[in-house]
Amino acid sequence: MKKYTGLDDITDLKELIAEAREIKKNPYAFEHLGKRKRLVMLFFNSSLRTRLSTEKAACNLGMDVTVMNFNSDAWKLEFEDGTVMNADTSEHIKEAAQVISQYGDVIAVRAFPTLTDKAKDESEYVISSFEKYASVPVVNMESATAHPLQALADAITITELSQQSKPKVVLSWAPHPKALPHAVANSFIGMMQKMDVDFTITHPKGYELSADVVKNSKVVYDQDEALKDADFVYVKNWSNYKEYGKVIATPETHSDWMVTSEKLGTAQFMHCLPVRRNVIVADEVLDGDQSVVIEQANNRTFSAQVVLKRILENLASKSQKEKLESSRYEY
Amino acid sequence: MKKYTGLDDITDLKELIAEAREIKKNPYAFEHLGKRKRLVMLFFNSSLRTRLSTEKAACNLGMDVTVMNFNSDAWKLEFEDGTVMNADTSEHIKEAAQVISQYGDVIAVRAFPTLTDKAKDESEYVISSFEKYASVPVVNMESATAHPLQALADAITITELSQQSKPKVVLSWAPHPKALPHAVANSFIGMMQKMDVDFTITHPKGYELSADVVKNSKVVYDQDEALKDADFVYVKNWSNYKEYGKVIATPETHSDWMVTSEKLGTAQFMHCLPVRRNVIVADEVLDGDQSVVIEQANNRTFSAQVVLKRILENLASKSQKEKLESSRYEY
Amino acid sequence: MKKYTGLDDITDLKELIAEAREIKKNPYAFEHLGKRKRLVMLFFNSSLRTRLSTEKAACNLGMDVTVMNFNSDAWKLEFEDGTVMNADTSEHIKEAAQVISQYGDVIAVRAFPTLTDKAKDESEYVISSFEKYASVPVVNMESATAHPLQALADAITITELSQQSKPKVVLSWAPHPKALPHAVANSFIGMMQKMDVDFTITHPKGYELSADVVKNSKVVYDQDEALKDADFVYVKNWSNYKEYGKVIATPETHSDWMVTSEKLGTAQFMHCLPVRRNVIVADEVLDGDQSVVIEQANNRTFSAQVVLKRILENLASKSQKEKLESSRYEY
Repeated sequence: MKKYTGLDDITDLKELIAEAREIKKNPYAFEHLGKRKRLVMLFFNSSLRTRLSTEKAACNLGMDVTVMNFNSDAWKLEFEDGTVMNADTSEHIKEAAQVISQYGDVIAVRAFPTLTDKAKDESEYVISSFEKYASVPVVNMESATAHPLQALADAITITELSQQSKPKVVLSWAPHPKALPHAVANSFIGMMQKMDVDFTITHPKGYELSADVVKNSKVVYDQDEALKDADFVYVKNWSNYKEYGKVIATPETHSDWMVTSEKLGTAQFMHCLPVRRNVIVADEVLDGDQSVVIEQANNRTFSAQVVLKRILENLASKSQKEKLESSRYEY
Repeated sequence: MKKYTGLDDITDLKELIAEAREIKKNPYAFEHLGKRKRLVMLFFNSSLRTRLSTEKAACNLGMDVTVMNFNSDAWKLEFEDGTVMNADTSEHIKEAAQVISQYGDVIAVRAFPTLTDKAKDESEYVISSFEKYASVPVVNMESATAHPLQALADAITITELSQQSKPKVVLSWAPHPKALPHAVANSFIGMMQKMDVDFTITHPKGYELSADVVKNSKVVYDQDEALKDADFVYVKNWSNYKEYGKVIATPETHSDWMVTSEKLGTAQFMHCLPVRRNVIVADEVLDGDQSVVIEQANNRTFSAQVVLKRILENLASKSQKEKLESSRYEY
Repeated sequence: MKKYTGLDDITDLKELIAEAREIKKNPYAFEHLGKRKRLVMLFFNSSLRTRLSTEKAACNLGMDVTVMNFNSDAWKLEFEDGTVMNADTSEHIKEAAQVISQYGDVIAVRAFPTLTDKAKDESEYVISSFEKYASVPVVNMESATAHPLQALADAITITELSQQSKPKVVLSWAPHPKALPHAVANSFIGMMQKMDVDFTITHPKGYELSADVVKNSKVVYDQDEALKDADFVYVKNWSNYKEYGKVIATPETHSDWMVTSEKLGTAQFMHCLPVRRNVIVADEVLDGDQSVVIEQANNRTFSAQVVLKRILENLASKSQKEKLESSRYEY
């Protein structure tokens, strides 16, 4: 694996999940792989699970880790080409990414969308600029439109806990008082499209996600119908995509979309966390036996670890090849 | 030791102090105990000594350490049960504590009181919620009403430096322009009640601490009388407890409570730091030979280290026992 | 090396540069030197390169590293002697520096100038107070008037890339919308005065730097004349020194001082970064082959590493000596 900025970087999902589960059994088996290698984690936004699980994953592999809250610790970045930088940005991403690449062997970036400028968000200008200008592999710790580490943890969780060969998985929208990104929903949909599952998306009319993401996935506007006989119900809010970033409904008006035990039936309940109790989902669900959200969060470590392991292996084979080539020149 | 959230977790103070002093002589003797163990330090408030000494202690034991400023790095936590979370809190402590327990082997928490809501502060809702929902040991790095790592460092310091078999120790209130917590005073009093010392508390009328803390300890309102023939004078401001969080007196009106060389006599001067010079205590005292505040701060490392060592030993014996039990099932 | 607060701490520049270049070839050769030694990095201001490169340098030497954003993580420091601390400062540097010295083996400090109080800035009260009260070596990560780690990286870069035995080096002022410190310019000038280079400073009238810094260095007000036949052009903005901290010119009025390919000629372009594109320097220069700014940033690691290595060696020989002396007492 050369990098992990989106699901396209996965070429062999089944093997990747199997490898992650092996790592989970024996997390220190590759402790020497990351020796003298440094992960630089750059946060433009808040993070709890991603921060702690990715750091732990890197340490399990023997890496050194630096965590930077970019906005408060460093300089305001410029991402536009050709700008006359006489306003509030102090450093161009071109320099920043090249420079950080000299201090770290892998760069991981979290950068949320604006939710006001759709074109800018969809350009993924932060993560793609890092990818463009960095000379080391880049890992996406949630970008404007994607959260592939979360989706991989979700895939691991479903694979571990499924009692069916082809489980029914439903992604259900749920109400939230604030405008939230589409990243988790997008990546979960993309992941389900790669897995052998019976997949349905459900949300109120008006909350349609990007057609480029949804593709042929089944969309059902009636939540009850969608949830029927589900094995896994993944609940997540997202803000409007067409009227970009708007929250059409107040939580009250769509409060009937909150997931309850009755709605859940016998399905296992999934959520990426953090989750607003009694808005997104009732206490009874989170506190009950069918919730697997804590195990999902646990799998964040192994999702990150398998990705970092693959990247480190690729770096090692690259440096092996370079050595071989340079030794060839000598003869 | 299963956890360290309050002085009640100490069952053998003398042995604990003796062990801390051994660690101080040979801080790397247990470097392998913490291998592949991670301490997650969560700060809801500022910290200098606690932050640096606890991290150092953990590293001396070979642990990995993650430091998070929770308020700025992560999500605003909800502590109430049954809340409809449609306001400003994003994540419930139930999920947060369970999740963090999967990324760390020990969780240390600093969370100051509100000083406006006495009942809430005395419930110790932050640290006790972590304790309730975390599946790993919790360490108190100063909570609303207690600072047991500081008190243990103080006990080590007095034991090291005392020239009497039963020294006279005085806790004296001193003026401060702002409302300060009761945590340090509370834990120091609790610790002195466990030690073989002649203990006196002195403060202006109106600054009475909780009766549950003070118990039978001697309280003398006349500072001069209290300080007479003291061996150790521990100085600390605290805000009003009855009129909760109020600063009755401006520093000026109680400025005669500031500790000077004359007041100190031949006693050794103690303070937990940070200390406001020439408000709490005169320069002459802090800059003189009788001040032991720097050594007190040094002992913070060994206070934290002995606690973490005991907790790691308990984790190791637990996992040993589990292994033994699981091997029993096999036969 | 006992400390590194300014260029005066360098006694053998050529050997130091040569040693840094050796470390660059083999960065892990002294991995055991820093074992069980801790670098405490204290930031009073933003930092990207200094933060990441110094941490990496310390880790390459096997040190443990703690990074603290002092303003947000700890307490507001008092630097004045004899103050009655009843206002907004909570802790005196006397205690802070002594205490931190017990938790770290080396303290590194970044503290920018006020740019409003010249006398205070020139007193270097932050870094010099740490130096005065700390009991461990102090490293300057950019202070009010000096940036000696940057200057050492610059010296390494020029030594590596120079094709002349005595290259012509020009320090050119360039426009910037905000008031910037003099630290980088000061230390670069001091460094050039120690090297065997043909050195010229150029800036608009009114931007004269301190005479104590400039000494006998040649100052030419005509930028074209100064840049003629240059081998290295180091570009940097600084605010007014006489009318302290003022930005006399808007970028527009002095925009003709921006460095372009035409102005650069065949010289190599240097800047400490972050740099404002198309204000300080044209895109064409930064994106062209003559820019060495990324390599300069890379050399920050080896500049910090050679300094930390020398300091660790000095600590080791000191502790060796102490052991020897204490063993002498025994016989």
